[in-house]
Amino acid sequence: MRILGLDPGSRITGIGIIDGERLIHAESLRLGDGPMPERLGRIFVEVGSLIERFRPDIAAVETVFMSRNAQAAIKLGQARGAAVCAAVAAGLEVHEYAPRAVKQAIVGRGGAAKEQVQHMIRVLLKLSEVPAEDAADALAVALCHLHTAQTAARLPAGLVMR
Amino acid sequence: MRILGLDPGSRITGIGIIDGERLIHAESLRLGDGPMPERLGRIFVEVGSLIERFRPDIAAVETVFMSRNAQAAIKLGQARGAAVCAAVAAGLEVHEYAPRAVKQAIVGRGGAAKEQVQHMIRVLLKLSEVPAEDAADALAVALCHLHTAQTAARLPAGLVMR
Repeated sequence: MRILGLDPGSRITGIGIIDGERLIHAESLRLGDGPMPERLGRIFVEVGSLIERFRPDIAAVETVFMSRNAQAAIKLGQARGAAVCAAVAAGLEVHEYAPRAVKQAIVGRGGAAKEQVQHMIRVLLKLSEVPAEDAADALAVALCHLHTAQTAARLPAGLVMR
Repeated sequence: MRILGLDPGSRITGIGIIDGERLIHAESLRLGDGPMPERLGRIFVEVGSLIERFRPDIAAVETVFMSRNAQAAIKLGQARGAAVCAAVAAGLEVHEYAPRAVKQAIVGRGGAAKEQVQHMIRVLLKLSEVPAEDAADALAVALCHLHTAQTAARLPAGLVMR
């Protein structure tokens, strides 16, 4: 299963693609500080072209948690809307995971520190170095979906974990 | 000039299309309360198909103002991201206007009440009744762009209003 993980942001959007536990692509898309519609368009186009290039089967994104303030939340929300739309427009199902669920899946503890998550991503994907923060967050949610899907596949038929 | 006005929301997204001061299309797209990616996909697809059907030259959207809380702001932001992406994906320029600028353009007063804006939309577009709230807000930002563009066109060459 090839999974696209997204960590949308209005300044930097993290994108990670894995195939099982193999790293396919990771990047931190820098969006500058131009007009918002332009940045949203770039997220949409870049995510769309990576989908076309690497053909993931499914997409995963973190549900957004509380932001510092409403203005920041609106910017974050817009970036998220653009990234999710790129996946939906390409016909991908998009799965959402709470930040705690992502940490739980990667480190085994919902309250894990960022560094622990980054360390585990390096270990799980057998990388020589820790990926950049935004790319790491995108890979983390992709791995979360992989583990969740694997767990679901091991359950007896008819029993679905929510 | 044919203008697409957007009033994005995660429950209802208002869409209005005008050609000069003639109403072409107005609708309030109801998105239900299903999963967010599904709603975003619907905004993207519906706005995209209206663009294909009515071929506007340009799009206009309100900048989002302060929301009640960060969670609401994120939802609103996502809907906005999806709507703007649909326009950008169709190759349309997207212009943003602050809510006060929209009221100023329609009623002549930045602090105008919602009812005054709705009334003026009915008058300006020569409608027999007031359009539904979300559609009216979308028409308002489209009219704001029309008036702004007309004012800019009347200015001496080289002088651009910001």
